[in-house]
Amino acid sequence: MNKIEHIGIAVRNLGESIKLYEKLLNTPCYKTETVASEHVDTAFFLNGPNKIELLASTEPDGVIAKFIDKKGEGIHHIAFDVDDIHAEMERLRNEGFILLNEQPKKGADNKLICFVHPKNTNGVLIELCQEMR
Amino acid sequence: MNKIEHIGIAVRNLGESIKLYEKLLNTPCYKTETVASEHVDTAFFLNGPNKIELLASTEPDGVIAKFIDKKGEGIHHIAFDVDDIHAEMERLRNEGFILLNEQPKKGADNKLICFVHPKNTNGVLIELCQEMR
Repeated sequence: MNKIEHIGIAVRNLGESIKLYEKLLNTPCYKTETVASEHVDTAFFLNGPNKIELLASTEPDGVIAKFIDKKGEGIHHIAFDVDDIHAEMERLRNEGFILLNEQPKKGADNKLICFVHPKNTNGVLIELCQEMR
Repeated sequence: MNKIEHIGIAVRNLGESIKLYEKLLNTPCYKTETVASEHVDTAFFLNGPNKIELLASTEPDGVIAKFIDKKGEGIHHIAFDVDDIHAEMERLRNEGFILLNEQPKKGADNKLICFVHPKNTNGVLIELCQEMR
């Protein structure tokens, strides 16, 4: 795990939150992207070596909508940058962590991703992400 | 804001969580520190340019204990590294954000810190932190 690639924040209204986070982080949103398979609209901000990703549901019963219904808006996950996602998935499996997908899947921002079950990580949803080459 | 300085994670049992995060992050805990004024024991892990901070309450009614009672274990705050915390506090006040302390206070890890109220940041508790020189 090389660094925190991004922190994902669940929000209700992407447009309003983009304006808010541009003020907070003092930097413009550099990209928005819809990930149809995950039913989310995303918006990205650079912060030095890291990124902030805002996530808004495109469906009333999408994963982000359900998260907000249960917990309110807020931090949804931490994503760590890895060089070799297959090797890191294998390492974590061997350490006893439970992965939420058996194989890496395509995420936003040109990444291969895999989630680690929060029940083994003190309630923290962890994403591994590897830049697609 | 230069980078994500650390992510703070609220945990019940610091010793057990240190072992868990050493496995997860594949790196040893490099420091533990008690912040008496905040009623927390902390443990730090390096992750490239970023850190992960585990937080456990030293008091049954401490801020971290209350957080866990309400929301369960999980991500408590994001801390951003700043060069000049007074200037950044002034900038955020002028943008309409509400600061939880009027003046910077001393936090863990040799930092001056200030928190931003989560009601203006989509439920995310944000910490500003400046290395003390």
